[in-house]
Amino acid sequence: MAEKVEGFNFEQRHGKERVRVARVWKTNDGKHYVVEWRVSISLLSDCVNSYLHDDNSDIVATDTMKNTVYAKAKECSEMLSVENFAIELAKHFVSFYKQVTTAIVNIVEKPWERIIVDGQPHMHGFKLGSERHTVEAIVKKTGSLQLTSGVEGLSVLKTTKSGFEGFIRDKYTALPETRERMLATEVTARWRYSYESLSSISQKPLYFTEKYEDVKRVLVETFFGPPNVGVYSPSVQSTLYQMARATLNRFPDIDSIQLKMPNIHFLPVNISNAGGQIVKFNDDVYLPTDEPHGSIQATLSRFWSKM
Amino acid sequence: MAEKVEGFNFEQRHGKERVRVARVWKTNDGKHYVVEWRVSISLLSDCVNSYLHDDNSDIVATDTMKNTVYAKAKECSEMLSVENFAIELAKHFVSFYKQVTTAIVNIVEKPWERIIVDGQPHMHGFKLGSERHTVEAIVKKTGSLQLTSGVEGLSVLKTTKSGFEGFIRDKYTALPETRERMLATEVTARWRYSYESLSSISQKPLYFTEKYEDVKRVLVETFFGPPNVGVYSPSVQSTLYQMARATLNRFPDIDSIQLKMPNIHFLPVNISNAGGQIVKFNDDVYLPTDEPHGSIQATLSRFWSKM
Amino acid sequence: MAEKVEGFNFEQRHGKERVRVARVWKTNDGKHYVVEWRVSISLLSDCVNSYLHDDNSDIVATDTMKNTVYAKAKECSEMLSVENFAIELAKHFVSFYKQVTTAIVNIVEKPWERIIVDGQPHMHGFKLGSERHTVEAIVKKTGSLQLTSGVEGLSVLKTTKSGFEGFIRDKYTALPETRERMLATEVTARWRYSYESLSSISQKPLYFTEKYEDVKRVLVETFFGPPNVGVYSPSVQSTLYQMARATLNRFPDIDSIQLKMPNIHFLPVNISNAGGQIVKFNDDVYLPTDEPHGSIQATLSRFWSKM
Amino acid sequence: MAEKVEGFNFEQRHGKERVRVARVWKTNDGKHYVVEWRVSISLLSDCVNSYLHDDNSDIVATDTMKNTVYAKAKECSEMLSVENFAIELAKHFVSFYKQVTTAIVNIVEKPWERIIVDGQPHMHGFKLGSERHTVEAIVKKTGSLQLTSGVEGLSVLKTTKSGFEGFIRDKYTALPETRERMLATEVTARWRYSYESLSSISQKPLYFTEKYEDVKRVLVETFFGPPNVGVYSPSVQSTLYQMARATLNRFPDIDSIQLKMPNIHFLPVNISNAGGQIVKFNDDVYLPTDEPHGSIQATLSRFWSKM
Repeated sequence: MAEKVEGFNFEQRHGKERVRVARVWKTNDGKHYVVEWRVSISLLSDCVNSYLHDDNSDIVATDTMKNTVYAKAKECSEMLSVENFAIELAKHFVSFYKQVTTAIVNIVEKPWERIIVDGQPHMHGFKLGSERHTVEAIVKKTGSLQLTSGVEGLSVLKTTKSGFEGFIRDKYTALPETRERMLATEVTARWRYSYESLSSISQKPLYFTEKYEDVKRVLVETFFGPPNVGVYSPSVQSTLYQMARATLNRFPDIDSIQLKMPNIHFLPVNISNAGGQIVKFNDDVYLPTDEPHGSIQATLSRFWSKM
Repeated sequence: MAEKVEGFNFEQRHGKERVRVARVWKTNDGKHYVVEWRVSISLLSDCVNSYLHDDNSDIVATDTMKNTVYAKAKECSEMLSVENFAIELAKHFVSFYKQVTTAIVNIVEKPWERIIVDGQPHMHGFKLGSERHTVEAIVKKTGSLQLTSGVEGLSVLKTTKSGFEGFIRDKYTALPETRERMLATEVTARWRYSYESLSSISQKPLYFTEKYEDVKRVLVETFFGPPNVGVYSPSVQSTLYQMARATLNRFPDIDSIQLKMPNIHFLPVNISNAGGQIVKFNDDVYLPTDEPHGSIQATLSRFWSKM
Repeated sequence: MAEKVEGFNFEQRHGKERVRVARVWKTNDGKHYVVEWRVSISLLSDCVNSYLHDDNSDIVATDTMKNTVYAKAKECSEMLSVENFAIELAKHFVSFYKQVTTAIVNIVEKPWERIIVDGQPHMHGFKLGSERHTVEAIVKKTGSLQLTSGVEGLSVLKTTKSGFEGFIRDKYTALPETRERMLATEVTARWRYSYESLSSISQKPLYFTEKYEDVKRVLVETFFGPPNVGVYSPSVQSTLYQMARATLNRFPDIDSIQLKMPNIHFLPVNISNAGGQIVKFNDDVYLPTDEPHGSIQATLSRFWSKM
Repeated sequence: MAEKVEGFNFEQRHGKERVRVARVWKTNDGKHYVVEWRVSISLLSDCVNSYLHDDNSDIVATDTMKNTVYAKAKECSEMLSVENFAIELAKHFVSFYKQVTTAIVNIVEKPWERIIVDGQPHMHGFKLGSERHTVEAIVKKTGSLQLTSGVEGLSVLKTTKSGFEGFIRDKYTALPETRERMLATEVTARWRYSYESLSSISQKPLYFTEKYEDVKRVLVETFFGPPNVGVYSPSVQSTLYQMARATLNRFPDIDSIQLKMPNIHFLPVNISNAGGQIVKFNDDVYLPTDEPHGSIQATLSRFWSKM
């Protein structure tokens, strides 16, 4: 979207962020479904006159974008995935406005989960869970699509089967090597689907919702290993790679996956004073800390991907 | 703890907050248990000389308090409830230091939950859940105890069976009456146990952990009603009262319960412009908002309680 | 407000939190003034029927409270202090509603400060500063008043003239004594004025605004000491006491002051490995940390105060 | 850094985030200077064996990176800008480790400001201000440099001289046109310097610190206009462009600037009920809200820039 203005190179976008919407669907037998979405919209459009010449005639007001979120949610008479809603919204902006060349819609879904009461799923009761489903849909006027789903806030911890050895030792190195430590991280994952046009998307309205659960399961099970014995992690790097590879191997319509897995440290506690050791670590007492934390991230893609 | 100094009335306390500790326990068959606690300690003690006369000889350094958290966690060779750990810590400070008359220990437990992989609980894998278990133990040198457990961050939502009618209407009133609305809240509960001395506490190390789960279940089930039909809520006030009463009726060793249940509004969406209505509400599209929110709180106690 | 219901003791309140309002005043010569307030209202009222008997006829809807905030802001045709606005609001609720016995209004003012451009104060331009002015007004139907002003987020740091020596040393103590350390804290102060009735309040509309600036100045200057030499702090406790005493000595219409001064630690950095010391501390390199932190708080009052 | 592994395309980086360090410098006459930095380091390096073959021999441990921050801070015997520190750190990693091809260092400086007591700057006393100075230095083994400074959290507000008219009106549009509104935003700016190698950087240790103050001044003064009359803003877009252009025109060694200026809405308050209007807006009472907000961002660069 770069263009030349007054001798400079200029790129711009505008949109609306943190538009919150909840949508309820009800079946005839009284079962309710609810989603709560936080929507962000960003438009690439031909509106440079508003920047340079005080002429807003090509500007889609951000208030109008907000109204559109609610109008489109209203139109969704059948339950649909957050991915499909993002695509619908983005599609609207590029088709409805001649000025808009690309629409970027990001949504975070709040994890309302159906509550179990007396061992049965409740007809209209929900409780907030933990990790969040995210999506980014980028749609161009040409009909081309980039669809990236993700999860954020997926905090996992294993109390053993983790080590870190054989790394570079130099004059700044103080960390001891170990084959036994806690491993904790808050996974942020984003995986890009292979669909490249609006027309190639699955017609099943909850296709991507199921896929989201499936990808999470693969990530989590690869992280932890089998329930009885687990799996040894020689580094966050290695575990991250296993998770990424398992995802691509399992889901043919996912082209690439990015994983951010900060190393949330659980430091061994050893405390001494002049009289001796107050606390001596024995794989039992840890100091968990968010600050500082290691940051490990990587993207694994099939060759033809452009994530 | 008020005392007279230099013609003024003076009250003081000091302590350490946000001490983070994790404790792992391992059974012989390789099953691991983990807790992560954020501990705050506050001591009432005779140390006014530090304030007035630059004399710190009666001060327990807050760094020492921090060390003690780790030393006491180390001593816990058997798994125990967060309540029992809080009591142990508080007991230590009033018995170890002649200057300390009262110790107040607050702990928030991070909700690490054992992960299920392939349908089986994992031996050493955990995932972060949502709501948090809290405790406050106040122990005096005399051995007297106040023990208050709680839950925070318990967000619940029902999509129907809620209304609000018949309230005061005056010149500042614009809210319509309704028998059909969303009801959402983030419950913060604190319940005080009837035990008034260290010696009267149950010897079962996980007694309070089980009780915590039981109280949560009563709160949630009263909020939602039966899974098939739910229960009508005529106001947050009424639902809150039902929840408090159910708790006291069910648990004889709970003397009082405080509930804070902010009314997290899901506003009906209606949008119009000169051309007519863009969105017309039909119990389907809502605007969720945290700001502003109603605040409803109450404490229900047996007569002999002093919460 | 405790009352007996169904064999229990019952206390309740309800209100509205996080009501945000901004008010602009304009002088004839084009100079603008702006305040932005976050208002919380809590009412003690006779409305137990809503809790027990599904009867909301004594309930002031929280939505009505919100509307009232805007209506009252509108009525303030002259600029006034946040204290006076809180009092006006509280007074309204106890006088307008027969059910309301006590109104508690808390407000946090966002620190918009007039911007300086080209060395001159701007007529209508403002920039956000740091610490925040707070107030709590409690008004009863009888006309009695409790007025407590405060400041929060006042972060201060001195790089020398601070130590901590002579404290209790025991088997859990590892902290070395020192006469040279950083001292950093985020002051939260709340001071209660002596006015006990609505009628005794000053008629100057910005009386409390000026007082707020004066109290902050006394707190800060006592914390730091003279600009050239500073003042030695033998403990956070001692410095806190000096600040509280200076406030009461200086302002006869302040009856009591509560100070919370967490000790935000700047830890000396020493790092070693097998090859020797990587970093050796020399009052130069520190690790600042929010977690854990010491917590020191105290209240100093004139004898006749009841804070 | 993409490479081919096991038939996939692979990109990775690792580092350490939220490393906090404070550095104090003292002049002979007793004047102290302090900075507090939160450092994030990210390394692009040849360490794919750690991901694929459990071989960590090419890994710089993130703990080592943390130690290096403190060691390098220690070596800074003279006060220097946060930009220069970022460059020093980045330079170290690419020169010290043969595996590291690129080092990316991001730092946020906490706004400690020298306190004024009795009208004089204090020798060793500081208070926390509001907006924060940021920097990103990207250094390659070749010696090439990208240096981007910025400011975040710069919240500004003008109470008049702002409007928004003539935008697209369609069936989703409800926003009225106006020539009189509040304009508030929280500016995030990032400007890239033209220096492209380590050797071309100014030798003055506080060169970039002064530049940071100068850029902020230009941004703020362009936003507000002259102190007496201000300047009319026909849109956030137009104001943003003026600010960007003024920066490039004023500072020849800045090649490009990115501005993010969310439109933080101050909504006119109008409230009605059946009895009529409770509050009627007259450019006086506003509802400030963070959610939703407009998002306007743009980058202006000289043609030869590659930001």
